[in-house]
Amino acid sequence: MVDREEKRHFNDQRDRKVCLQEVGPRDGLQNEAQTLPPETRADLIERLLDTGLTRIQIGSFVNPRKVPQMAGTGEVWRRLQHRPNVRYSALVLNQRGLETALAEGVPHVEIYVSASETHSLKNVGASVRDALAEGVRMVETALGMGAGVTAGVMCAFGCYYEGSMSITQVRELVARFDAVGPVEIGLADTAGLGEPQGVKSVIASVAELVGVDRLTVHLHDTQGMGLVNLRAALDTGVRRFDASVGGLGGCPFIPGAAGNIATEAVCALLESLGYTTGVDVAKVTRVSKHLAAILGGMPAYQVSGRSRED
Amino acid sequence: MVDREEKRHFNDQRDRKVCLQEVGPRDGLQNEAQTLPPETRADLIERLLDTGLTRIQIGSFVNPRKVPQMAGTGEVWRRLQHRPNVRYSALVLNQRGLETALAEGVPHVEIYVSASETHSLKNVGASVRDALAEGVRMVETALGMGAGVTAGVMCAFGCYYEGSMSITQVRELVARFDAVGPVEIGLADTAGLGEPQGVKSVIASVAELVGVDRLTVHLHDTQGMGLVNLRAALDTGVRRFDASVGGLGGCPFIPGAAGNIATEAVCALLESLGYTTGVDVAKVTRVSKHLAAILGGMPAYQVSGRSRED
Repeated sequence: MVDREEKRHFNDQRDRKVCLQEVGPRDGLQNEAQTLPPETRADLIERLLDTGLTRIQIGSFVNPRKVPQMAGTGEVWRRLQHRPNVRYSALVLNQRGLETALAEGVPHVEIYVSASETHSLKNVGASVRDALAEGVRMVETALGMGAGVTAGVMCAFGCYYEGSMSITQVRELVARFDAVGPVEIGLADTAGLGEPQGVKSVIASVAELVGVDRLTVHLHDTQGMGLVNLRAALDTGVRRFDASVGGLGGCPFIPGAAGNIATEAVCALLESLGYTTGVDVAKVTRVSKHLAAILGGMPAYQVSGRSRED
Repeated sequence: MVDREEKRHFNDQRDRKVCLQEVGPRDGLQNEAQTLPPETRADLIERLLDTGLTRIQIGSFVNPRKVPQMAGTGEVWRRLQHRPNVRYSALVLNQRGLETALAEGVPHVEIYVSASETHSLKNVGASVRDALAEGVRMVETALGMGAGVTAGVMCAFGCYYEGSMSITQVRELVARFDAVGPVEIGLADTAGLGEPQGVKSVIASVAELVGVDRLTVHLHDTQGMGLVNLRAALDTGVRRFDASVGGLGGCPFIPGAAGNIATEAVCALLESLGYTTGVDVAKVTRVSKHLAAILGGMPAYQVSGRSRED
C-alpha cells in the first residue's frame, strides 16, 4: 500500500528510484579500533557489490598516521574486480591525497569542506576559508584530470561544537563548488545532529541553488533520527544517499559521532515505502553479519529482508 | 519551522501534545543479563520521573524463575514516592500476576495478548484463543477492582516467527477487549518488524473501531525503523507512545528483538517537529548515561538535548 503522501513523488518510475552509495569500507571502517588489511577490505567491497549496490566508497587517501584504518587504499583499489556498472570513489582531504587517488586511477573522488570553523580546524587543521580554497583547487584538479567529483559540505545540518549551522554558510560553500564545474553536491550530517525540519530547510535551500537532482545526502544515526531524516530528504526530492553496512561509522574527530544510517535498514525502509534501490536487502544483511563477525561486534540492527533469491 | 505536513495536525494545542510512557524499568531491564535489585530500580524510576515523564511502567508481575530481572516488582512499588500526577503501571501476563499487582495496590495494569499463534505459545504457553480468553477475564477482574487498564495486542505489526499479521486478527483482539469496558488499547511492535505503511494501515483500521484517542503504540527499533514508524503513527493521529530510556529492551522470547525506541530520541524528534512532551530531553539523556554506567554499556544513541534548566 502506497498512500497519498508517498504517491505524490511517484509521477514516473524514475522518481521512485533511489541510488545508494555504500560508505562502510571508508566511513565505517575508519571508525573501528581494528585496522583491516587491504585484502579483507577488497573482499568486503566485492561482497557489498554482489548485493546490487552500484556506488561504493572504497576508502580514503589520507595520512595513515592519522587514520591507520585507511592505510593501503591504493592496494584495495588494485585488488578489486572493477565492475563496469559500478561507480567507485574515494574520499580525499587534501591535494596530496587527491593526487595519489588520481595516480591510482580511482575514477571518482569526494571532496568535502566543513561548514563549521571548529570542526574544520579539528578535522583538517584549516579554517573553513582555507579549506574551501584548497577544496576548490582540488575540484579543479580532479575535473581537469577527467575524474568525477562529489563536492560536499560536512556538518551541513549542525555541528557538535557549534550547534546549528547557518544556511547561508552552507549555500556559499555549495555555490563555490558549483562555480567550478559539473560536480555532484554532497550534504553531510557529519555530527548526526540533524532533525527532519532542519534537514528539509537546508536541502530545500541548497536545491534552489543547484537543483535537487544534483544532491547526495549523507546521514548519521547518532541521535536515532537517521531514517526520519532520510524520509525528510526524500520528501524534498533527494534520491541519492550514502549508507554504511551494519550502521558502522562516524567521524574520528567528533566524540560519539558513530553510526551512519545502516544500508540494510535504509533499503528495507525504502522498499517498504515503494521505492526501488536495486539492492537485495537480505544479501546486505548477510554481509553485515559477516563483517560483524570479523570485527567481533554486532550489526546495529537486525533487518529481516527476504532475499529475492530465497 | 513547522511545515504544512506537520501543521495539519496542530488544529489545537491538545493535538500537539504527545504523552510518553517510560517502559525502561520493565521492557528495558527485563532484557538485561544483569538483575538490578529493587532499590536500584526504584531509584531509576524516581530519576526518570524527575525528567517530567508522567507515565511509567514500574515492572511486571511475572514468574521470577522465567524473568528473574523482574523479581521484587512489589518491593519496587513500595519504595516509590507515589507522585500524584503520575500514572504508575505494571505488566501482568496471567491472573496470578494480576492479583499480586492489585493486592500491592498498583493502580494501572497492562494486559497484552499476542496476535501471533507461535509467539503466544512461546511467550505465555497458550494459544491466541486461550490467551485472549484469559486476557479478557483479567481485564474484567482489573476493571472490577477499580484499576486502570491498558489492553493490547503484541506483534500487532508483524511476527518474527509468522511474518505479517492479519489486520482482521488484530481487530478481533481489540474488539474483544473493547467489549469488556473502558480500557486504553495498546498496539505493540513486539518483534520490531513494523514498517511505516503497515503501521499506518493497522493503526487506521483499529482506530476506525475504537477511535484513535484510545490508542497507545509501543515500537521497537530492531530494524532501525522505530522513529520512522513513530512518525507514521503520529500521522494517523496517535499521541501516546511507549519508549525506553537509552533504547533498552526487547522481548526475552524473540531472538534479536532488542531495542525499544529510546525515550531521549523520541523526545528530541517530537520537539524538533513542534510537538510538546513535557519531558526534559537533556535530563533523560543524563538518566540514560547513568543507567548505562550501572549496566556497563552504552546508550543506543547520543542525544544532545539541551536542558531547560541549563
